[in-house]
Amino acid sequence: MDQAQLFKQIAQFWTNDMPFNQLLGLKIKHFDTQRSEIRFLWDDKLVGNPIQKILHGGVTASVLDLAGGVVAAANIIDQLDDLSPQNIQQSLSKLGTIDLRTDFLRPGRGKEFVATAHIIRSGSKVAVARMELHNEQNDHIAFGTGTYMVG
Amino acid sequence: MDQAQLFKQIAQFWTNDMPFNQLLGLKIKHFDTQRSEIRFLWDDKLVGNPIQKILHGGVTASVLDLAGGVVAAANIIDQLDDLSPQNIQQSLSKLGTIDLRTDFLRPGRGKEFVATAHIIRSGSKVAVARMELHNEQNDHIAFGTGTYMVG
Amino acid sequence: MDQAQLFKQIAQFWTNDMPFNQLLGLKIKHFDTQRSEIRFLWDDKLVGNPIQKILHGGVTASVLDLAGGVVAAANIIDQLDDLSPQNIQQSLSKLGTIDLRTDFLRPGRGKEFVATAHIIRSGSKVAVARMELHNEQNDHIAFGTGTYMVG
Amino acid sequence: MDQAQLFKQIAQFWTNDMPFNQLLGLKIKHFDTQRSEIRFLWDDKLVGNPIQKILHGGVTASVLDLAGGVVAAANIIDQLDDLSPQNIQQSLSKLGTIDLRTDFLRPGRGKEFVATAHIIRSGSKVAVARMELHNEQNDHIAFGTGTYMVG
Repeated sequence: MDQAQLFKQIAQFWTNDMPFNQLLGLKIKHFDTQRSEIRFLWDDKLVGNPIQKILHGGVTASVLDLAGGVVAAANIIDQLDDLSPQNIQQSLSKLGTIDLRTDFLRPGRGKEFVATAHIIRSGSKVAVARMELHNEQNDHIAFGTGTYMVG
Repeated sequence: MDQAQLFKQIAQFWTNDMPFNQLLGLKIKHFDTQRSEIRFLWDDKLVGNPIQKILHGGVTASVLDLAGGVVAAANIIDQLDDLSPQNIQQSLSKLGTIDLRTDFLRPGRGKEFVATAHIIRSGSKVAVARMELHNEQNDHIAFGTGTYMVG
Repeated sequence: MDQAQLFKQIAQFWTNDMPFNQLLGLKIKHFDTQRSEIRFLWDDKLVGNPIQKILHGGVTASVLDLAGGVVAAANIIDQLDDLSPQNIQQSLSKLGTIDLRTDFLRPGRGKEFVATAHIIRSGSKVAVARMELHNEQNDHIAFGTGTYMVG
Repeated sequence: MDQAQLFKQIAQFWTNDMPFNQLLGLKIKHFDTQRSEIRFLWDDKLVGNPIQKILHGGVTASVLDLAGGVVAAANIIDQLDDLSPQNIQQSLSKLGTIDLRTDFLRPGRGKEFVATAHIIRSGSKVAVARMELHNEQNDHIAFGTGTYMVG
């Protein structure tokens, strides 16, 4: 199995078997060592402001954290020689968000949302990613910066 | 109705009628112009890492954003002369998170979690709050800093 | 005098008459409502680590804050009808950094450094800018995000 | 030489021989694995706003970065078995700021300023500190949060 197939398998697992991602409907469409893309649909349960009908800020933070986290995960796997499931699982257990900044630019309105991340620092211990959230009309809703433990 | 009663009513409304808070089980126990306290119980659906059984980082960000947001809301209301429901609702429609930083200190494990916020900057346009998340054993899980639009 | 000329005059004033910018040798090469460019030369007095000979992190934060701040200033001026010196000065007195995040990507080594900013949120009260610092070989040294009070 | 004496020696070295600290007049009064204190006097060259006569935001960021950095350094040294100068120097060469958030609360006015830091996360690879800046009247000027590479 090559790396692209492996990343695809992991994306499916995290989309289908990570409870909070399922609860929010976050779908990992793609990730590699450089970038990622997560999509989710509007759902009334994601509302943070019942009068204005906009996404809760925590939804935005959640999807940006995930978008950066999967890119960080790809950088962990990319450093492995042994791609056995045990070794991958053990290495990914080191993954953790150290800190996350979210900048809310516009109200979270739309039918479908896409979060993207790209890596800006990749090291053996720490990775940093920058993230963006847009809706289906390409309105720019939020920016994020996340620092992740990877080793 | 005095301010303390008003804040209690709003806390109930946001706890019971804000969909995403309900989905996560976030309960606003107290808020005033200086501080707030939010509580929630462990729930398997909040898991971000199915192997390690810890809270998703987005859950942590969500509750810290809410803890800071209600303190910012109290500062908006505190500046009002007219406490009619329409005026309160219109004034609160200006409330919005500008940016939020979350520092993840320890894995999110526990049975019950408590988020607290205290105001560090209170102005007519922008308020800044600092937040903390602990579990029932007083393990310090996360810190946060949020900047809110209030006018 | 058109806006471009006015911005040029202000750039000269802030480069030559703002003591800390002079101390660090920060030169505002350009700014408008969308973007800015600041340049400075290596100087031994800017060293934060005498063994490794790299820029102090505070130098990086200073130049990123300035880069974002001048774009925020342009957005203040852009909203004015009356461009008299008194009105410009009074309006700019509202300018202030609310918060600044700096991400240090690589050691600050080089002969000449260029900081750029672009606006990501422009409102009547708050503006947000993203900044980058590169050296003369286009090594990417740092990222920044700044939130500014503009009204 | 015990650890307290060693920290005192390093504080003197960084105060006297780190060019940018000298330029700004930053004096490390104390640091250990838990907290630090840095002091500096008002100086006209630190002004970022010639009309309002307040500290440049970069001065604030610089001193907060230093306050957090010396606490991170103490945590590096605390993990060493071999306290030879070569080993200390080599270990400290791993120290670096990963990211820094500064929250500006009040205008930087005063005669003397004191920055304090306390550690909030101490690990073998990454340390996180929270910082504050006050003036001689105990006005709270700024908050900071810094993430440091320590291993």
